[in-house]
Amino acid sequence: MIQYPNGVKKPSQTKQKQNLKKLSINSYKNRGMDFEKEINLTNQFYLETKRAVITKRPTPINVVKVDYQRGAKITHAYFEKQSTTDYNGIYRGKYLDFEAKSTQSTTSLAIANITIHQRLHLQRIIDQGGIAFLLISFGKKDEVYALKGIDFLQFLEKETRQSLPYSWIKSKGKKIQIAFQPRIDYLTAIDDWFF
Amino acid sequence: MIQYPNGVKKPSQTKQKQNLKKLSINSYKNRGMDFEKEINLTNQFYLETKRAVITKRPTPINVVKVDYQRGAKITHAYFEKQSTTDYNGIYRGKYLDFEAKSTQSTTSLAIANITIHQRLHLQRIIDQGGIAFLLISFGKKDEVYALKGIDFLQFLEKETRQSLPYSWIKSKGKKIQIAFQPRIDYLTAIDDWFF
Repeated sequence: MIQYPNGVKKPSQTKQKQNLKKLSINSYKNRGMDFEKEINLTNQFYLETKRAVITKRPTPINVVKVDYQRGAKITHAYFEKQSTTDYNGIYRGKYLDFEAKSTQSTTSLAIANITIHQRLHLQRIIDQGGIAFLLISFGKKDEVYALKGIDFLQFLEKETRQSLPYSWIKSKGKKIQIAFQPRIDYLTAIDDWFF
Repeated sequence: MIQYPNGVKKPSQTKQKQNLKKLSINSYKNRGMDFEKEINLTNQFYLETKRAVITKRPTPINVVKVDYQRGAKITHAYFEKQSTTDYNGIYRGKYLDFEAKSTQSTTSLAIANITIHQRLHLQRIIDQGGIAFLLISFGKKDEVYALKGIDFLQFLEKETRQSLPYSWIKSKGKKIQIAFQPRIDYLTAIDDWFF
């Protein structure tokens, strides 16, 4: 599967529309904004208020061909899947690591959204004593939940279903307030859980 | 300035030579291996032995044009500078963050190698109670040093020179043993300093 990155610069209006159409797969309903962008804004706010330093790992890109005659212009490349999670950083002295997923479903989040590599990565972070979690957006409901990595991994062990039910996420996770600043104040959940 | 990534896949021998020539700017002498690759191998070893989870942030790439008719082939893009450091992760429960730099000079490391953004990032990590450092390779000497982020930042405050002298790095930093496995056992310096 292919990941479409945020912040794709578009050379023309036509291309822009074309790309936005592709990007809207993960778009954040009722907000006209991508879930990822909301998180990035939140992290920017955390950074500026010195609350935490949490950054998004750039989308890995497999570069096939570079034209050095034209200022190292990449002329052939492909998006790759992140083998770890998308976000990590430091909060209150602790290592923090999470994956963000949005869904247009109102009833569940397909587990296939989180790759085997990412599950393994979450497990490793937990084993090292870090804070690992998922941030899940139900776009149509305009709701965001934080879910402990350990709860997610235990669900995978116990259950055979292919998706995390909304009701289960709602009961196990923590609902995150959506506001102006910070947009998605997910560190409140971390405060409650880990401090 | 432009960053050339590791792991660039080359479509032909000619291109390969062309790219290798570019990549060799940072190549790791007497070893035929890139410093970055050595670190990645070290991190892989740390991961497999469950000692730490430390990953390299992918090289950020500014994607200008994507051809969706051809399986989301990127046809126009540019390498970007990392605004943070290249590596971060968790070790003994602590957040760890570092930038790796290699030089072919035998007398100093040009400070311009570490961008303003990266210096600010190191400072922020220190402020949050994380472990921040530099890993510096003197290729021609076959020597690698770890240098505390705080020592580096204090040098910048006190000194007006444009480079870190080798002798200063040698006295302030910790020499890292280069071996087969792990290649560059930099966590030993972290053990001595922070635990």
